Amino acid sequence: MTEERILLAHGDGGALTHRLVKEIFLRYLRHPALRELTDAALLHLPEGRLAMTTDTFVVKPIFFPGGDIGKLAVAGTVNDLAVTGARPRYLTAGFILEEGFPLADLERVVASLARTAQEAGVAIVAGDTKVVERGCGDGIYINTAGVGVVADGCDLGYHRIMPGDVVLINGTIGDHGLSILSKRAGIEFETPVESDCAPLNGVTEMLLDRFPDSIRFMRDPTRGGVATTLNEVSQSTGCDIILDESALPIREEVQGAAELLGLDPLYLANEGKVLIVAASDAAEAILSALREHPLGSDAAAIGRVEAGRGGAFSPGAGQASELTAEPGPVSAQGKGRVFLRTPLGGHRILDMLAGDPLPRIC
Amino acid sequence: MTEERILLAHGDGGALTHRLVKEIFLRYLRHPALRELTDAALLHLPEGRLAMTTDTFVVKPIFFPGGDIGKLAVAGTVNDLAVTGARPRYLTAGFILEEGFPLADLERVVASLARTAQEAGVAIVAGDTKVVERGCGDGIYINTAGVGVVADGCDLGYHRIMPGDVVLINGTIGDHGLSILSKRAGIEFETPVESDCAPLNGVTEMLLDRFPDSIRFMRDPTRGGVATTLNEVSQSTGCDIILDESALPIREEVQGAAELLGLDPLYLANEGKVLIVAASDAAEAILSALREHPLGSDAAAIGRVEAGRGGAFSPGAGQASELTAEPGPVSAQGKGRVFLRTPLGGHRILDMLAGDPLPRIC
Repeated sequence: MTEERILLAHGDGGALTHRLVKEIFLRYLRHPALRELTDAALLHLPEGRLAMTTDTFVVKPIFFPGGDIGKLAVAGTVNDLAVTGARPRYLTAGFILEEGFPLADLERVVASLARTAQEAGVAIVAGDTKVVERGCGDGIYINTAGVGVVADGCDLGYHRIMPGDVVLINGTIGDHGLSILSKRAGIEFETPVESDCAPLNGVTEMLLDRFPDSIRFMRDPTRGGVATTLNEVSQSTGCDIILDESALPIREEVQGAAELLGLDPLYLANEGKVLIVAASDAAEAILSALREHPLGSDAAAIGRVEAGRGGAFSPGAGQASELTAEPGPVSAQGKGRVFLRTPLGGHRILDMLAGDPLPRIC
Repeated sequence: MTEERILLAHGDGGALTHRLVKEIFLRYLRHPALRELTDAALLHLPEGRLAMTTDTFVVKPIFFPGGDIGKLAVAGTVNDLAVTGARPRYLTAGFILEEGFPLADLERVVASLARTAQEAGVAIVAGDTKVVERGCGDGIYINTAGVGVVADGCDLGYHRIMPGDVVLINGTIGDHGLSILSKRAGIEFETPVESDCAPLNGVTEMLLDRFPDSIRFMRDPTRGGVATTLNEVSQSTGCDIILDESALPIREEVQGAAELLGLDPLYLANEGKVLIVAASDAAEAILSALREHPLGSDAAAIGRVEAGRGGAFSPGAGQASELTAEPGPVSAQGKGRVFLRTPLGGHRILDMLAGDPLPRIC
């Protein structure tokens, strides 16, 4: 099918749809439930609560250093399940294909999606394909939804976060966002910045196995980046989060290119990173465990949770002009704020991303 | 928000995304798991096997007589679960919005989606929104994925179909497809043909409760219509299916408009219909039960299952020229065929839909 392209008839539910399903999708996706080609997969789940999530992927370009839309579609949904404490089990995949999309590209994406699912230990058990006319899509969009099981006794969430906790991350910040943006902007690096796109369930399951009581909360900082995710935490808990700028693991080339583009890595998307809020007495042990994991070699403790100040900050070493800004309309919904402690000891408010012109990063 | 439109920034994961989620999605979708705004919903499921499915909706136009893309997105996924014998429980919803899409239309769609979910007794427990640039989408596309529970002991499937079984349907054929096509073609009817779009889990659960042993198989004939769905059955079982043309419930206006457009209602999509293969001795009782249900008043027995003839048909009354055609490349994959028995006693082969120019019917 190398030079063939998607036709509208590939989406009409008839003979060409069936051929597409058999020749591409079932060639790579082999779960028995999927091969049945019935309306819904029938599955068994072990005991526990069900975790369920969905994400749609519209990343542009669809192939980028370190990944592609297929890998991303699996990793993204696996990670959303993993950070809630679930063991991801089953995924669905819904494709929107634009008329004219090369079948060879579709095959490459599906093969990558299948490979990533295998790596993550999840099965694709149901799928759907729709075709839209040229100009009503952009090659390929993929939705994945997933379910997993949360062991009884596992309790992660905002309600467990308390002042004194530490904030950890399993590695460098902003790689995915910068990989996409530099590819789009046509910027060449000597060593290309690769997306960190990866399924994180191996990391999160290891952490929950080894530190069941010390892990309070996990979240993957995707769209909006570390700064936006931590703003969600501060708004939902009422606590402040103080990030230590000198502790942030950021690749030199990411920092440089971000400055060139006028961007802050703290607002760039990550697709293989997890922010962990943990009890401070376990922080060192958790860091060591993370650093032994292939996806955690650059892990760092980047901040701490403090009682909310209601938007103001008045430490001895602070720079008053930066710190007394009134909270904006978004942050006003919660009392907590996120502050960046600079190497000189000043504190800068990190707000949620607003009106950033970076669509289709995932 | 009446005159506001979707901006790219509504999809960047930052402040505008959060506002959209709070002001539109959470206004109508109120499941506690969704309001938590965490990465995955945590849910409890009763005992049984898990059924899981996904479907993407790209219907054009998004508002049509009898429904809209929001209603369709819930009904379609609920129905895919219901026909496997599951009680649908939880749905996810993933939106792809095109820059410039009116927020008022989004609100109308989300309200309809929420209302249909409530009618069907399912909860929307996770969601996602992406925004693509103008010209890379078409207003709104929605993916829904769903899970449900199949009671132990419930066993529906191709393997239970056998010669002698009857084929039933809960009402008129082709209404959804014709509603969409006539709206697109600008055809006006005195009484507009409404889409049959509806969640069918009430019907299927009633049938499984009352006729647990006699229902062999159910399937909703959506894209490709009744003819394509029954071709899937015949190919998967090796059995022939003989439809009785005079028994097909087709609205007069649908038949007339389909002829005008050069289409066969048997290939038009349905979104509130279920094909039921059942033991013949229960057929009458099942028909009566269907006709007592609000979604079954036009129910009919439309055909029977017979042992496969390998593509040929040689009854005394047949018209040989129509019946000895070699099976095409698709049908060659199975031995069974679908035949339409005409009022004059002839038999016409009904193949799977091939190359039909009707994209975006659902």
